[in-house]
Amino acid sequence: MKDRRIAVVGAGAVGGYYGGRLAQAGHHVSFYTRSGIAEFRASGLHVSSIAGDFVLPHVRVFDDTAAMGPADLIIVSLKSTAIEAYLDLVTPLVAKDSMILCLQNGLGNEEIFAAAFGAQRVLGAIAFTCINRTAANHIVHLAHGLLRIGEFGSPEIERARSIVAMFRNAKVPAEAVADLRHSRWEKLVWNIPFNGWGAALDLHTAGLLGTRAGETLVRETMAEVIRAANAVGIPLKRSQIDMEISRTKGMGQYHTSMQLDRQNRRALEIQAILGKPLQLAASAGETNLPRMTTLLECLSALMNR
Amino acid sequence: MKDRRIAVVGAGAVGGYYGGRLAQAGHHVSFYTRSGIAEFRASGLHVSSIAGDFVLPHVRVFDDTAAMGPADLIIVSLKSTAIEAYLDLVTPLVAKDSMILCLQNGLGNEEIFAAAFGAQRVLGAIAFTCINRTAANHIVHLAHGLLRIGEFGSPEIERARSIVAMFRNAKVPAEAVADLRHSRWEKLVWNIPFNGWGAALDLHTAGLLGTRAGETLVRETMAEVIRAANAVGIPLKRSQIDMEISRTKGMGQYHTSMQLDRQNRRALEIQAILGKPLQLAASAGETNLPRMTTLLECLSALMNR
Repeated sequence: MKDRRIAVVGAGAVGGYYGGRLAQAGHHVSFYTRSGIAEFRASGLHVSSIAGDFVLPHVRVFDDTAAMGPADLIIVSLKSTAIEAYLDLVTPLVAKDSMILCLQNGLGNEEIFAAAFGAQRVLGAIAFTCINRTAANHIVHLAHGLLRIGEFGSPEIERARSIVAMFRNAKVPAEAVADLRHSRWEKLVWNIPFNGWGAALDLHTAGLLGTRAGETLVRETMAEVIRAANAVGIPLKRSQIDMEISRTKGMGQYHTSMQLDRQNRRALEIQAILGKPLQLAASAGETNLPRMTTLLECLSALMNR
Repeated sequence: MKDRRIAVVGAGAVGGYYGGRLAQAGHHVSFYTRSGIAEFRASGLHVSSIAGDFVLPHVRVFDDTAAMGPADLIIVSLKSTAIEAYLDLVTPLVAKDSMILCLQNGLGNEEIFAAAFGAQRVLGAIAFTCINRTAANHIVHLAHGLLRIGEFGSPEIERARSIVAMFRNAKVPAEAVADLRHSRWEKLVWNIPFNGWGAALDLHTAGLLGTRAGETLVRETMAEVIRAANAVGIPLKRSQIDMEISRTKGMGQYHTSMQLDRQNRRALEIQAILGKPLQLAASAGETNLPRMTTLLECLSALMNR
């Protein structure tokens, strides 16, 4: 398996961490980064992690995917704010049997790659982790870390299982899921309130849960996401809410990536996290989602600053 | 009229400006301030105003209302975030015929004074103005400035008219209103979205109106305030929305007082602006106000920072 060539497109917090784990375990990993290439080349990749710190002094890093050559596994970990640009970035990496693994939040990303390169190539991964990038080539992994990996266009789960095994051998907890859509919606139950309201109000997780009103806001928003999921045929249950609240209280003051994007005036992943879910729910006849709708308006208004 | 003793309780942007205009016109005005007394005593009150700049080099200013003596007209312009403390502050100023004029945003303030000192003493004023305090004793008046003044506990309008005349003679546009509740709700149509969402999202007025999504957020919130007003018997019309949007676009990048309070981590006037209106609407059977409810949760969550 270690002769597999892996390309990580997007060496941010998530791509840097998970790609870094694979490189540390001896895999042939190349990274594409939009920024910070000088720092990577000068001092490699530095990871502080609850699962063990590590440094990769020499990293294969590029700012042009055409220079990377084709890859067997393409891990797309760019933020989903400029989907159109992804295709051009990924095209030079795609060979006859390349797999494309969308390691991103929200909905709609696999569809883009499936349309462009064929659904049979595409898998999705969902990271349940608290991870931040503190400098171009410094990553801090604070809590959790599970990857859930599933096929997008294929009923077989064997490829997903082989990728899961590769991550497990690289100190990354991972599991294969039979229903990627289910897992994506399940993750949205957390992402929409904590990324969404966290960015809109500029509050970390403990800030959102520090008042009864804030916890109500989070819980009511989660209930809407579950209603939206149910409308599109995903059987999430309201009992997830208590579990998510309790798990999040254990995270302390976690600043989600979207809150950090807001603070740094970067583009927000609004479409994948909120726009697409609302659109799918509306197509299924569920339009009474006032907190999600209001949140979409709030985040869209912030994009104009 | 100029032998009338006027006490301004709260020399912030609004109290400082309107009280300053009365002092400049020759009235006997004393100010109570919670902070900045040294600056007032050292260099007076400085006002930059679209209606003409002025400086009052000597201002009667106190940090203890007991030292001020009784007043004929008590203008309460404290923020409504510590209502309980007002009564103690105002008590030493109240004589047999004192009038109390609540120059504050939102609902519920007149009721507090009416219960403590008698409804017949109480009037309310609503300021339609863009005004900020840039230092303890420096006020910048940016736009508009109209005061609407009405009786709270009396069907007579004569006292309100005499106060209106006093302000008009002091370069302050003013008008008497027959229905104070109507005017307070009418103002809330603006205050709730612009103060509320402006503070929640940390966006100025032009920021809120700079995207289609932001304008939708504002318009939908205004529509809910109008529905809430209608539920409690105040006949506001949806045509007000276009007028408010158009007027606000003329203000440029106005930072509401609540946005500035958020930025400076001061208490937010949540109860008067949102809590009380929602409570009155609910008592009248209108509970389907999701944007107002969500906004109340957002602002309450921010109070815990």
